[in-house]
Formats: sequence, C-alpha cells, structure tokens
Amino acid sequence: MSEEKLPKRSENFSEWYNQVILRAEMADYSPVRGCMVVRPYGWALWENIQKSLDARFKATGHVNAAFPLFIPMSFLEKEKEHVEGFSPELAVVTHGGGQQLEEPLVVRPTSETIIGHMYAKWIKSYRDLPVLINQWANVVRWEMRTRLFLRTLEFYWQEGHTAHATHAEAEEETLKILDLYTDFAINDAAIPVLPGQKTDKEKFAGALRSYTIEAMMGDTRALQSGTSHNLGQNFAKAFDIRYLDQTNQLQHCWTTSWGVSTRLIGAIIMTHGDDQGLLLPPKLAPIQVVIVPIYRNDEQRALVMPYVEQVRQQLSAFRVQVDDRQELTPGFKYNDWELRGVPLRLEIGSKDVEKHSVMAARRDIPGKEGKTILPMDNIATGVGDLLQTIQDALLERARVFRDANIHQPNDYLALQEVVQNGWAFSWWCGSRECEDKIQEETKATIRCVPLEQPGGEGQCVCCGKPASKKAYFARAY
Amino acid sequence: MSEEKLPKRSENFSEWYNQVILRAEMADYSPVRGCMVVRPYGWALWENIQKSLDARFKATGHVNAAFPLFIPMSFLEKEKEHVEGFSPELAVVTHGGGQQLEEPLVVRPTSETIIGHMYAKWIKSYRDLPVLINQWANVVRWEMRTRLFLRTLEFYWQEGHTAHATHAEAEEETLKILDLYTDFAINDAAIPVLPGQKTDKEKFAGALRSYTIEAMMGDTRALQSGTSHNLGQNFAKAFDIRYLDQTNQLQHCWTTSWGVSTRLIGAIIMTHGDDQGLLLPPKLAPIQVVIVPIYRNDEQRALVMPYVEQVRQQLSAFRVQVDDRQELTPGFKYNDWELRGVPLRLEIGSKDVEKHSVMAARRDIPGKEGKTILPMDNIATGVGDLLQTIQDALLERARVFRDANIHQPNDYLALQEVVQNGWAFSWWCGSRECEDKIQEETKATIRCVPLEQPGGEGQCVCCGKPASKKAYFARAY
Ligand SMILES: [Zn+2]
Ligand SMILES: [Zn+2]
Repeated sequence: MSEEKLPKRSENFSEWYNQVILRAEMADYSPVRGCMVVRPYGWALWENIQKSLDARFKATGHVNAAFPLFIPMSFLEKEKEHVEGFSPELAVVTHGGGQQLEEPLVVRPTSETIIGHMYAKWIKSYRDLPVLINQWANVVRWEMRTRLFLRTLEFYWQEGHTAHATHAEAEEETLKILDLYTDFAINDAAIPVLPGQKTDKEKFAGALRSYTIEAMMGDTRALQSGTSHNLGQNFAKAFDIRYLDQTNQLQHCWTTSWGVSTRLIGAIIMTHGDDQGLLLPPKLAPIQVVIVPIYRNDEQRALVMPYVEQVRQQLSAFRVQVDDRQELTPGFKYNDWELRGVPLRLEIGSKDVEKHSVMAARRDIPGKEGKTILPMDNIATGVGDLLQTIQDALLERARVFRDANIHQPNDYLALQEVVQNGWAFSWWCGSRECEDKIQEETKATIRCVPLEQPGGEGQCVCCGKPASKKAYFARAY
Repeated sequence: MSEEKLPKRSENFSEWYNQVILRAEMADYSPVRGCMVVRPYGWALWENIQKSLDARFKATGHVNAAFPLFIPMSFLEKEKEHVEGFSPELAVVTHGGGQQLEEPLVVRPTSETIIGHMYAKWIKSYRDLPVLINQWANVVRWEMRTRLFLRTLEFYWQEGHTAHATHAEAEEETLKILDLYTDFAINDAAIPVLPGQKTDKEKFAGALRSYTIEAMMGDTRALQSGTSHNLGQNFAKAFDIRYLDQTNQLQHCWTTSWGVSTRLIGAIIMTHGDDQGLLLPPKLAPIQVVIVPIYRNDEQRALVMPYVEQVRQQLSAFRVQVDDRQELTPGFKYNDWELRGVPLRLEIGSKDVEKHSVMAARRDIPGKEGKTILPMDNIATGVGDLLQTIQDALLERARVFRDANIHQPNDYLALQEVVQNGWAFSWWCGSRECEDKIQEETKATIRCVPLEQPGGEGQCVCCGKPASKKAYFARAY
C-alpha cells in the first residue's frame, strides 16, 4: 500500500477512481496502450460476478459455448448499420504465420456476425428453436480515450445470442434478460439501476430495439451497465438464418443479443467507494470478512491465534482472510483492508478471547458507530446477518443518492442547469432534433426511456410540443 | 443426429475422430481457417475440466488474473530461444482504429513476455514472493495443419506463471504442478498419463527444463497433454524481474510456467471413445445420467412420467437429463446418447414402475452385460456407485491398453518395428544425434524421460553406447 494519501473522492473523482484501482491492486496499466491487466483481486471480483450471472443464465435455459476470436472482414460488412457502427473501432490482423492474409481478419468487437453464420448452419427446423447460447469472452474495440474498466481496447464480457421463431419470443427474451440484469445489479451489486429502452440514436448498431440498465455513479454521471438487444430479422436476413416452420415454410429467425462487461467493476467502484477507498458489496466481494489479530507480544499472540483459527473455521461458509502479517501494525492493516473495500472486519485481541466474542467493524460505517460485539456462539449467524445488513445498506444509500440527484425539470433552462450535476427525468417529444440539441448544448444524452411511465401527457422539455413519454437525460461515461 | 453410420474407430481412426466430434456436437469448423467453434456440449465438458483444475490451483495457493491479448512484437524478441520458437506461428495486428500501428502487436501465443514485464513492475522484495498467478485464456498459434481440439489456430487454455526467490522453489513448483496435472488426468479424466521430463530438443522455447504428461491415444499415438516448465532465470533476466533479498541484495527471480488446453478434450475422446461414439468419464461428463422413458401409449406415458420425475428428483446430486422427445423412439435415443458418450442410461417403462426399480445401462459395456436393475430405494447411492464403477473401469481399460502397447525393445531394429504401432520404452544415451536419427527414420520422438527410472544402466537403443536412463519413444499428435 502506498504511503501517499488517496485523493479525495469529492475533490477529484476521476483521479480518486484511478488511484483506488491501482492501490487496491484491482488492475494496472499494460505496456500496450489502452489495454489493462486485471490483477488477482479485480479478477476475483469478476469471477464472482460471472458466477452470479452464469447461474442466472443457466437457470433460464441458456448454455455456454465459444466462437472464434477472428472474424472475416467481409462478415461485418453484411449488416449495413453494424459495420458503420463498428468500423472505426476495429483491430485488424493482416499477417499470419509470416504471410500476408488474403482477407484481413478482424479481432471481434462483438460476435453477432460470426455467430449468425454458425446459426445459419445449425438451425434447420422449428424443432431446433429457440437457440439460447452465451459466451464469456474477450473483445477488442480500438478506443482512443481509455479508462481502466470503463473503456479499454480489450475488455471481458459475456455476450448472449439467441434465435427464435417469432418476433414475440425474441422480444420476450430481450426483456427477460433486461430483468435478469436488473435483478443482478440491484440484488448482488447493490446498484439501483434504472432499466429502459434506448433511443434510436443510442441503440446498438444493427438492432431493432435496445434496452439498457443505467446506473448513477458517485459523481452523478450515468454509466450504461448492461444492454439487451432485439435484433429483429436484421442479422437473420444478412446471414440467412432460416428454419422450416410447422407448415414446412421457410422463415427467417428473430434474434437477440445481450451483454455485460468488466465495466460492471467500474460501476461497483464508482457507486459504493468513498474517501477510504473501495467498498465492495458482500455478495460479490472476493474477501467478505478480514480477521485482524491484535497482540503486543508472543504471549498474547499464543493466546489470540488459536482463537482466530477457531473463528475462521466457524466462518467456513464465507470468504474469509486472516491478516497475520507480523511486520505490520493493526492500524495499518485496517487502512489497507478499508482501501480494498472488504465489507466486514473482525478484530480479535486477548480481551476478546476472554470475553468469548469478537469486535466486528462495518466498512460502510466508519468509527465506533460501525462497531458491534459479536458473541462467539453462533458467530456464523452473526456475521451472515451483518453482511446482509451491509448489503442492504449499500443499496439503500445508493438509492437515496440516486433519487436525490434525479430532478424533474419541465423547461429547457432548468434542464440545462440540472444536468450539470445530476439527471433530468423529463418529457420528451420523441424527436431526434430535440435529442441532438440537448446533447450539443448540455452534453447530456438520453440514457433511457423507462418502460414504466407515469402516464398521461406533457410538453417536451426542449421544444414544448406534446410528449407522451418521459426520459432520463444525463451526462454519461 | 446424422443417419449415416459413424466410421469404424478401428478402420479409420482419424475420420472416426472428426465425425464423432461433429455428430456429437462437441465442436464445429468455423469460417476462419483453422479456428474452431466449441459448441455447448463441448464447452460444458471444458467447463467441468476448468472447475476441476481451478479448484486444485486454488487449493495450492494460486490466484487467477487476466493479462492482455496483445503483446508488442519487441517483447517476444527479448528472449532469444522464445522468439525463435514462436515467430513462425504468430498472428499480427498491424492496423487499429483505421490507422497503421507504429509497432505491430502480436496476438499472444503464450504470455511469458507480457507477464514477465508486469512482474518486473510488481515484484520489489522477497516479501512479494512467491507470485502464483494463473489465467484462463485464448491463445493463437498460426498452425498450418489443424485438427479440432488437437491443433487449432485459436485454442483455450490455462497458463500459470509463477515467480520465486530460488531455483529450488521454482523447481518444486514445476514438479508440484506436474503432479497436479497427473492427478487430474488419472483421477478425473481417467487417462493413465505418464509424467516425465522433455528432452532439450522437445522442451519449451525459453525453458531450462520442461516436464510433461504424455497419454496414449486409442490408435497408440502419443498426445502431450500438459506441460510444466522451469524457466530458470531466462525470462527474469530478459524482463528484469528482480527482488531485494533479506540481506538487501538485488536478485533475479526464478520463474515457471505451465498449461493445459482444450487439447485435453481431444485426449478424452481418443482415449475412451469407441465405435458407438464418445465415452465420457463420469467425473467430467456434462450429462452423467440420461433417463429415457419408455411407453407405447398415453396411458403408459401417464404412468411412467411422474415416476421419471421422482427419479430425477432423487438424483439431484448428479448431472441428469430426461429425454422426453416424443417424436423419437427409445432405440434412436439410446444410439444418440451413446454417440454423445453419456456414461449411464436409465430406462424406465411401466414394468419398472410396477417393480419399483429402473434399468441401468452402462455406456462402457454394450448390451445385456452392461445392464443392472437398480431398486428405487436408495437409487442415488446405486447410481453414484455405478458411476464410480464406470470411472474406475475406464481408467483400468485405458491402463491395460497402454501397458499392452508399450514395448521394451533393446535394439534399433526392434524399436523401428515397435513404434509403428505402439510405444518403445528403451535405454537412451542422452545424445541429440540418436534422438534426431530415431525421429528421422521412424517419426517417433522422445515423449519423455520418466522421473521414476528402473535404475541401473543399459545400452542406448540407437547407438549402443552406455545409457543411464530409459525414455518413451512414440509417434505423436
Ligand atoms: Zn421536442
Ligand atoms: Zn545413443
């Protein structure tokens, strides 16, 4: 751990973000511009995110597979909007085995095209549908301005790709996944995301409709945290994905795609972190409980350590680490584990051994207020309850912060003001002109049009014309 | 499932191998030459392999991380043997974001160089050692002749990279991993691998010493199934990975690397498969038990299906699939699941319901011989025992086959004969000349020099000079 003080989150959010990632050893810069190294602590968090999502995918009938990293350039060109959307961001392999390739290969920025090609080969009949495949993969987009976890040349994600017999089934899948992402974000990551539909301007290149979960970061900026796309028949027509229906007619499939990425790690950091560093939600934290033994001499140590070991064994259902580094003081260790965002710390000294208890310190409440004495009897229950309390408290705190920073301006002047430091939830007439104007003049984009609307009608916050829907406007990462 | 008959394994092993993979839907060819698509059934097998290995890595103190896909070309050039070994096989990215890159980027063929660069940054003191990191990743080697799972341009693997304070610790790690791989192969994949050391000719490009587990496939050819390398200080010197020791002296680290890949899937197929198709070891099989309900009419179906559901619930500890496809006959289903290598089939008809039992059919023993009646009481125990019996039987059968095909020729003529259709375990003088000559004249290479030797001395099978070690010679994949 570095001796220098962490920049204050309230004073320099951006620098705080970078420093906390580097110092907590979540990730590091790599020698290749814009690529990151995800260090073991960061990867352990990603593995927990993966486990949590993968279980949800499998419970809803999805299976995993792996499609090639390389895609022929010609494949991307088959869907017009898709190639326009991704062309500027491509990494291209031109040489292999010492020879120039006849056709350059693109390093996948996303896999609709190559998966579409395979689906066309595999799908013959309505009996083959639906196809519900996901892959956990690395993808590459040649971004010019990069940020650790938020926007890197290479990143890690899952991409689901499904094929259905009807538009209705594809739409149902798209929304089912939107719900699944929302459930994960709220219940596991403690991020109170707002789900909704993307505007045509903001939708995925090649989609009929895109849905998104949008999160408010600690500086009030928005972060798109997961997307689910109804691709209509666009890719099915481009790649000839067809099936024989029950009346023996050849039909094009309806496809979807959906993904979340290591960006979620950035979302967790920027939602829950504070001036002390990270604060990880217990359900996903690589270390849920750190035990710091306290002793002044060998005699105390001989008393404390066997007790620590007992506690550790009682807590085998949790992810526990004992910090017995003898060259460091307890105070240094407290700071270190606070920086790393471990949600619960147990302090165990000789007095605790005598009293047959441990001192528990919550990461989310500093100082005495966050301390509780837990009796050794039933300590697993006590720890489990405290972790759940912390999980709930993180979500509640983020929800209060989010709601306090969402305003409902009715006129354009107020909107311009509000989005400098928060979100606007305002009526929008649905026109691209208003959307463009607001973005140009305020840098705020429409994050989403929520599916649940207040109802009724209003006047567009920009042009004043009649509007039937409200949208979230915010500056975004 | 295709209607055409599978080629016979004994008549055309190579075509049998390809067909069984395609028909069992383990993998498929991709539109990019030499790249494969791992289909859900194949990927589920890989996920089980991953889980099994990952648990072993974590139990021995290793952690996972992720390093970039792209490596600057100059990095590979820092270790002389390494660049010579990998140069002919590189895929090179020359363009990104529409611009030509100043320095071409290599798509990682393996990650010693970029990980070495990061370790140099992270490791400062003896307190930072050992570093024990693994990554699960895709890698690319521009192979000219490819085979599904065995040799593809892109493949999936894990690569462990560790750094230590001393040569002894690095060697200990290298051998610990060799043991771990051996244990996995024998106990989970039921492949009786032979561990040993690679010759200098066959070792990893840049290693001090390479160890390997070598497996005999069903056609008696050898398959290198996992390797563990003691890299000495070669990469530490090339990348300046140094630490301050306890006396404040700057020392170079000693590093190791080790990996197994999706090749293991090929090994499992070629070790256990037969004329009916795949035969998957129960510990790794994506589906351990398939239940086929048998009925002739709706009345019987109404009797059988609730019972099938009861059985399924009793077997919740296993990976079970109920095949209730109504358009297919039981006989078709038996063939289908035999092709897919499901180790145990339960047949349930109305008579079984009456008798309160099920008919279990082992995949490894065809016909009546492999059938057992399992009582419904304690069915989970009965199924668990049978799966373990099959697991043991697969290993034993492979061991018997292996031992029957390892010969111990003492002279060169006999060796030439033997390696046409088996392995030779013979004395070797240790010279590169004899190794080269045998390879040129018989296509057999030294697979490994086992760590456990018979002792004593002999005469080199090639030149007749004194030899202190025996080696395995075989033609290999
Ligand atoms: Zn308007
Ligand atoms: Zn010799």
